[in-house]
Amino acid sequence: MAQPPSDRGPAGLAYFDEDRSAEVVNARMGQDVSPRLKQVMAALVRHLHAAVKEIEPTHEEWLAAIRFLTETGQMCNAWRQEYILLSDVLGVSMLVDSINNRRPSGATPNTILGPFFVDGAPRYPLGADICRDGKGEPMVVRGRVVDTQGQPVAGAMLDVWQTNDDGFYDVQQQGVQPEGNLRGVFEADADGRYWFKSVKPRHYPIPSDGPVGQLLGRLGRHPNRAAHLHVIVTAPGHAPVITHIFTPDCPYLGEDAVFGVKQALVADFQKVDDPEEARRHGLQAPFWRVDWDFVLAPA
Amino acid sequence: MAQPPSDRGPAGLAYFDEDRSAEVVNARMGQDVSPRLKQVMAALVRHLHAAVKEIEPTHEEWLAAIRFLTETGQMCNAWRQEYILLSDVLGVSMLVDSINNRRPSGATPNTILGPFFVDGAPRYPLGADICRDGKGEPMVVRGRVVDTQGQPVAGAMLDVWQTNDDGFYDVQQQGVQPEGNLRGVFEADADGRYWFKSVKPRHYPIPSDGPVGQLLGRLGRHPNRAAHLHVIVTAPGHAPVITHIFTPDCPYLGEDAVFGVKQALVADFQKVDDPEEARRHGLQAPFWRVDWDFVLAPA
Ligand SMILES: [Cu+2]
Ligand SMILES: [Fe+3]
Ligand SMILES: [Fe+3]
Repeated sequence: MAQPPSDRGPAGLAYFDEDRSAEVVNARMGQDVSPRLKQVMAALVRHLHAAVKEIEPTHEEWLAAIRFLTETGQMCNAWRQEYILLSDVLGVSMLVDSINNRRPSGATPNTILGPFFVDGAPRYPLGADICRDGKGEPMVVRGRVVDTQGQPVAGAMLDVWQTNDDGFYDVQQQGVQPEGNLRGVFEADADGRYWFKSVKPRHYPIPSDGPVGQLLGRLGRHPNRAAHLHVIVTAPGHAPVITHIFTPDCPYLGEDAVFGVKQALVADFQKVDDPEEARRHGLQAPFWRVDWDFVLAPA
Repeated sequence: MAQPPSDRGPAGLAYFDEDRSAEVVNARMGQDVSPRLKQVMAALVRHLHAAVKEIEPTHEEWLAAIRFLTETGQMCNAWRQEYILLSDVLGVSMLVDSINNRRPSGATPNTILGPFFVDGAPRYPLGADICRDGKGEPMVVRGRVVDTQGQPVAGAMLDVWQTNDDGFYDVQQQGVQPEGNLRGVFEADADGRYWFKSVKPRHYPIPSDGPVGQLLGRLGRHPNRAAHLHVIVTAPGHAPVITHIFTPDCPYLGEDAVFGVKQALVADFQKVDDPEEARRHGLQAPFWRVDWDFVLAPA
């Protein structure tokens, strides 16, 4: 009754077939398609089908995945991007960052920007304290910006931001924290030296009240980021670096929820008890001293 | 200044590393996690990271993907499931269907259910016409429900649905089409025979006014489904089959937007000009005659 069997339609395109499913799907792309889009989609379909074939999801598991993806999209709004969180906790954000920021050996590694960078942070003179709420353990960060030959990069700009001692960025607590709290822009001196005051960073959780937080919970993972300071260092003629400085004693150092930690970004935080040294920084002892150099790759 | 380099944190969990990125991510899963969830996530992360490494997306491409996923979620509501559409057009729905419905050779293959099945369609006596709006070319479908030994399955139930001649299901046009138009439930007779009247199915587009439709456009693909009739056949002691009957002359037969076509589901549609045969079916010539047997696998 059926017509003679054929594995393809009149125009020569193959019907669906479990074994060569990805090839059937990819053969449908048209001729006038952007070659890059074609390459990207072909790879996505190939790996997606390989994953499905390995997993062999039941219909209910497939539906659970559809629901998760839907709810993740619906959690997003003007100030919440749940899909970036998902990318973060699956290590995809770090992977994309690494692929796009391979640096010569010895240069300061890049790491993810995170959602709390704000353009136009307060500009301060060297030595200023970016902490405006008086909470936390005082800290001095100082060092040099150099190139991969060790030559100082005079006038490099450093844009620094971190949470306050309660674990929130100023923009997460408008009306609670002083505006611009724990953000600042500094210009290195003629020798590439910089120094500023702040408070020792603390770990904080990424937003965990949505589908991604639920997933983390079901995977036996916590939502905490290892304690860090964000820094972007820029200078003409050099590749900008978006980076972190991590404290070595954070309990989440080895299990940052978004995989931002790189071994070369864990600093030494020295506790200084010397009242004389504290006085020179305009502080009371004890305080934390962080000596940290940034090494910029050529542009 | 930095502490002695180490590639892992204090608890022994490795820091992120581009080369072994998927392994670093998967090592984070806890001990008390559902073994199936662990297996599923490990495979997803592995294939996702492999795809990212192959594609090497720019930051902008990554952000475009984040936006696409977000908009796809936000397109969903009580009556629109854009993520299922995405799964459909990427061949994932058919792949999951195939994996879960492998049938012995000779049995009628399963294909996707689609979003327009409605439980509780009108029950009709054999021979009834399910077309209530009088549009389209008349068609008689007839045949037998048998098991894989060729034995009749007496009293098998057939649940049939299709679009009207304008390409819409009744539930898409409430208040426009008569209620229950082109849906019906039939019971095969003691010999497993069934017959009913309807109209020849037409191709129709899946919803293309959202992110998935835009993607199809950019991939040089159209949103049309090859013309088909949906049928679910059930009988005690036999595996139910969710299937389609395709017309052989649809211009989209070889390029169904959701990959639902299988070679074994393309029927022969005979145009009958004989006024006598038409009269026996209570029709005017010409009409379409489809002889189609369903072969049920054991439960
Ligand atoms: Cu893969
Ligand atoms: Fe941060
Ligand atoms: Fe349909």
